[in-house]
Amino acid sequence: MPTPRTRVRRISDRGHYDVATIYAILDEGFICHVGFSIEGQPYVIPTGYGRDGDRLILHGSVASRMFEHLREGFDACVSVTLIDGLVLARSQFHSSMNYRSVVALGRATPIRDEAEKRRALEVLVDHLAPGRGADSRPANDQELAATEVLEFPLDEASAKVRTGPPGDNDEDLDLGMWAGVIPLELCTAAPIDAPDLASGIEAPRYARDYRRGARPPHDSKAPESRHPDSRQFE
Amino acid sequence: MPTPRTRVRRISDRGHYDVATIYAILDEGFICHVGFSIEGQPYVIPTGYGRDGDRLILHGSVASRMFEHLREGFDACVSVTLIDGLVLARSQFHSSMNYRSVVALGRATPIRDEAEKRRALEVLVDHLAPGRGADSRPANDQELAATEVLEFPLDEASAKVRTGPPGDNDEDLDLGMWAGVIPLELCTAAPIDAPDLASGIEAPRYARDYRRGARPPHDSKAPESRHPDSRQFE
Repeated sequence: MPTPRTRVRRISDRGHYDVATIYAILDEGFICHVGFSIEGQPYVIPTGYGRDGDRLILHGSVASRMFEHLREGFDACVSVTLIDGLVLARSQFHSSMNYRSVVALGRATPIRDEAEKRRALEVLVDHLAPGRGADSRPANDQELAATEVLEFPLDEASAKVRTGPPGDNDEDLDLGMWAGVIPLELCTAAPIDAPDLASGIEAPRYARDYRRGARPPHDSKAPESRHPDSRQFE
Repeated sequence: MPTPRTRVRRISDRGHYDVATIYAILDEGFICHVGFSIEGQPYVIPTGYGRDGDRLILHGSVASRMFEHLREGFDACVSVTLIDGLVLARSQFHSSMNYRSVVALGRATPIRDEAEKRRALEVLVDHLAPGRGADSRPANDQELAATEVLEFPLDEASAKVRTGPPGDNDEDLDLGMWAGVIPLELCTAAPIDAPDLASGIEAPRYARDYRRGARPPHDSKAPESRHPDSRQFE
């Protein structure tokens, strides 16, 4: 359920509050932007994450400014954004983007129990590269002590989604300009071996076939909205 | 020059403060994450942007919560992140990402002069899709009045960049696991015509050949750093 703070106000038909939608976006993404405020100055820092049920797992150096701050339990915000395309309407006003985004508000909590911390890091590694957790060396005690692992709740989160073609006004349809969508997607290239890789070791399947989620079909049905400010990305 | 607030503290050799590096990242990107704080609650909202010299151009509905807040001149933060690859070290601790990111701190200023506002919107449209500004209908007076256009300064900004292969510890080189980089890139697919496009209008070259910047080569030279927390994304 949306709270007054997470309710999507602009173009409210793009708002989604069901966990299926929210989790699908979070599972396809792997970079979040974390917002926090120190002495009145907001900061936004990108970092990797993993989803573990109804929480996100964040990790970083115990000495990082962000993690020093977050572990104290200050109010924070985590955003994840997937870009699916540029929407070029004939009018600049109705031009937009196709995207799927999640905004979660809450406070992080440090995971201090060693077994829990190790399990959370495994979730994170397998979120970034499914299969890698079992095919890499987990942290040793010293590394684990140098790593802050935080959980961030997902109970105050909302998603915003735009799909489909541009929604020009009728009077603009005959302007003679092209209109449509340029699809965008995060693509993978062939893995690049580390220069110090021993001969005879090949990139594993999870690296060769790596991809994030499935992009939704770029359906060419009617535009979802002709709301006067449907160009609004935010 | 970095200020105490923008100086990269973690893995300081990844910090860059020259405008060439900062502007190149901003020019390749087109989505930023804007951080602001309302009643002590930080928010992070994705939105499109354009770069116009030493400022970013942001736009949105005059009625949006974010723009209502930003135009009042409160402290804010704008982050742009480009993801270039997953860095899979043998040790989870040294696993990382290749990325290029910019964090700018400052306060937005509304652009109210009509000619200036129109020019800023043209910069924004051409930043998102170079060539589209001249091939689309600019805002009419009503649309312009409904659109808030803000400039955000770049004088307190820093970049953080990681490139290259993983940097495992020597004692991990013989673990027998694959190590390397999975390159990631934002890719474009063929433009999709709007369903209401008149027959005989073809997608223009700037849509057919659309791409963002040039990805840096995934060089396979020595790892940039074996700093104990080189896994740190943030």
